[in-house]
Amino acid sequence: MAVHFRPATQDDLETLVLMLQDDALGSQREDGTLPLNANYLQAFDAIQADPNNQLMVAEIQDRVVGMLQLTFIPYLTHIGSWRCLIEGVRIHTDYRGQGLGEQMFQYAIGQAQEKGCQLVQLTSDKQRPDALRFYEKLGFVATHEGFKLRLLSPA
Amino acid sequence: MAVHFRPATQDDLETLVLMLQDDALGSQREDGTLPLNANYLQAFDAIQADPNNQLMVAEIQDRVVGMLQLTFIPYLTHIGSWRCLIEGVRIHTDYRGQGLGEQMFQYAIGQAQEKGCQLVQLTSDKQRPDALRFYEKLGFVATHEGFKLRLLSPA
Repeated sequence: MAVHFRPATQDDLETLVLMLQDDALGSQREDGTLPLNANYLQAFDAIQADPNNQLMVAEIQDRVVGMLQLTFIPYLTHIGSWRCLIEGVRIHTDYRGQGLGEQMFQYAIGQAQEKGCQLVQLTSDKQRPDALRFYEKLGFVATHEGFKLRLLSPA
Repeated sequence: MAVHFRPATQDDLETLVLMLQDDALGSQREDGTLPLNANYLQAFDAIQADPNNQLMVAEIQDRVVGMLQLTFIPYLTHIGSWRCLIEGVRIHTDYRGQGLGEQMFQYAIGQAQEKGCQLVQLTSDKQRPDALRFYEKLGFVATHEGFKLRLLSPA
């Protein structure tokens, strides 16, 4: 299964939003109506405008089958180090359980190494036991609690 | 205790590195020798150059007594939303247990709201039980596992 990675373009956006929605948690919080909610376009533009954010897609035979977002963050800690934060990892339902996730993470980790990152980090919902096992298998260690605080929408 | 918040400047850097080092975990991984390890200066410059990163200090009577870093990240998920990631929170040993942490988080959450963030997130080392309780008291919920993967230094 030859996988090709490239930055997402605006033409991918509908496909990506549908992939985000086709998920137990995503179905409760995304908006898959067309034309797309303008918030998605604004977010896409903001990601594109930030050189430390990369929204990547994985393609198999010209079909977008996976996505992930990398954020590169400079910190003073660890003697001034860059970290790579991975978020929004999704694989199309037709392509799960076939090793695509491992390839996507190999790619992401390679990108982090090229950027000189010392650490890759991510948080994974405790309601996703399969994902937790997947990350442990890749060598990630759950040394931290992942805390979230939801803010009220601005008035 | 009147606390003043402002962006860190290069003149704060020695104070900040010493504060990072004056900590059970930080003492094992930071370099407090002077003149400062050049990596700290490079990291500081990288933070300053990124409009989505803010390294903030808390001052009491013109003395730097606390620090934290905010990273604002645009995502497609949650119908295209911004998140605020908080990292590198430290309080000078002389000023702990006096409510400064709460004030620093009120400030950070205010900054996140101003930026239109829907979510504030952070990871906290499971070896810091006091910190875990502190975040829970502030309303953060540990819905996620915080996974880290350390990369080998680039050759």
